[in-house]
Amino acid sequence: LPAGSTLDDLVVVLVRPRNPLNIGAAARAMSNFGVSRLRLVNPYTVAFREARSAVGAHDVLKDAKEFGSLAEAVSDCTLVVGTTAVRNRTLQHPLHRLDQRAGSIIRKQLRTGPVGLLFGSEKIGLTNEDFSHCHWVLHVPTEEQHVSMNLGQAVAVCLYELAHAGKTKSKPETELKKSGIKRATMRDNEQITDALLEALHKSGYVKPGTDAVTEKKVRSLILRLRLEEMDAKVLLGMVRQIVWKLRRES
Amino acid sequence: LPAGSTLDDLVVVLVRPRNPLNIGAAARAMSNFGVSRLRLVNPYTVAFREARSAVGAHDVLKDAKEFGSLAEAVSDCTLVVGTTAVRNRTLQHPLHRLDQRAGSIIRKQLRTGPVGLLFGSEKIGLTNEDFSHCHWVLHVPTEEQHVSMNLGQAVAVCLYELAHAGKTKSKPETELKKSGIKRATMRDNEQITDALLEALHKSGYVKPGTDAVTEKKVRSLILRLRLEEMDAKVLLGMVRQIVWKLRRES
Repeated sequence: LPAGSTLDDLVVVLVRPRNPLNIGAAARAMSNFGVSRLRLVNPYTVAFREARSAVGAHDVLKDAKEFGSLAEAVSDCTLVVGTTAVRNRTLQHPLHRLDQRAGSIIRKQLRTGPVGLLFGSEKIGLTNEDFSHCHWVLHVPTEEQHVSMNLGQAVAVCLYELAHAGKTKSKPETELKKSGIKRATMRDNEQITDALLEALHKSGYVKPGTDAVTEKKVRSLILRLRLEEMDAKVLLGMVRQIVWKLRRES
Repeated sequence: LPAGSTLDDLVVVLVRPRNPLNIGAAARAMSNFGVSRLRLVNPYTVAFREARSAVGAHDVLKDAKEFGSLAEAVSDCTLVVGTTAVRNRTLQHPLHRLDQRAGSIIRKQLRTGPVGLLFGSEKIGLTNEDFSHCHWVLHVPTEEQHVSMNLGQAVAVCLYELAHAGKTKSKPETELKKSGIKRATMRDNEQITDALLEALHKSGYVKPGTDAVTEKKVRSLILRLRLEEMDAKVLLGMVRQIVWKLRRES
């Protein structure tokens, strides 16, 4: 890969990883395919420490950042993609199969800002709560009888595809830039979600006991909008004004 | 993948693997991508035993076969491909970069007979002696500063590409069959190599101390011929006749 690869802004996010070997393997695959930004959400602390202090631990691992929540880990991203081996999740999320096309979409988005690629814990993968932070879901196609991939291998396969997707076609640089619309960051989206939720609560929309469900619903909704940066700011201003008003009323 | 996948005849060969975790990881990736035939050449015995008895060991691993030499392990294959992370090997072998095109070549060959895909040991990869048993070499493209992949991850990435290469194009079945010429098996090639070597020895071609080098040279030469099945039989008959003659003369 050439220096200044387009994967510079790819952020690999491991959500609740448990096994130091897997964390190390993910880091190694990242360095193989020119991806340097690793973030961990609530890793099993001992595992993270072990992986980091392992002989031959990669720079990727030494520079890895730890976060207390997924929202914080992806706050600067303009696209968040969750990964799953399961084909028929009952999600409202668009599902893309890992292939050159999906790779090209992510690479194109990388020209306008950081993209978060999420991998769930070894046992249960990503939860519906995790997926509510995702714009869409990337399905790694595996055998129906053996869907579940090893974490390090899943990272390797996804990054291999991303590193080489569309390499054969090689569109002219200008064309790609032109199509790269600047999207809202996840921080923008989250602010809108928070404000809207407060507005919904305050307005009696949220039925008792449905807080968590509503929060996920609202977050997913905002993400599906794929807001442009400026639109997000305008929308946030609007919702905040509504909240301000509702606060005064209550 | 549909049942009766074209990867049924793919044979993954681990040459001198040392680490039970890597053997297990290779087997897991195989089951993920619908490949069932695993062979090990001179594995570190303890490692193989450990991997096999691990909790959750895959059927792939239970059915794995052990061989004392690479030649035996690939004797029924009609194409043998070695893998390497290194770009600029000074090999006489054709080097294919892992991509859809390379995947398609292998898949096409699989329609006419078993194909062996070789992975070297964790420390040193495949040796020149190993490569002399290969028709060509598959290069897994990685970053120049971090070429060396984890064994399990290398297997996963290669099988992912093979399982999905050319899936988008999906040529009609008949067209693929037509182009599938029946090639000589490695057993055929090895018999020719052996006979030719004896002929060379007997004829004073082989200089003292160059036995090993000559053997590799001859084997590679025969493989580069990409003999068709019938041609191989004819050639073997010829060389054996020469040997018979030389034996009588000496």
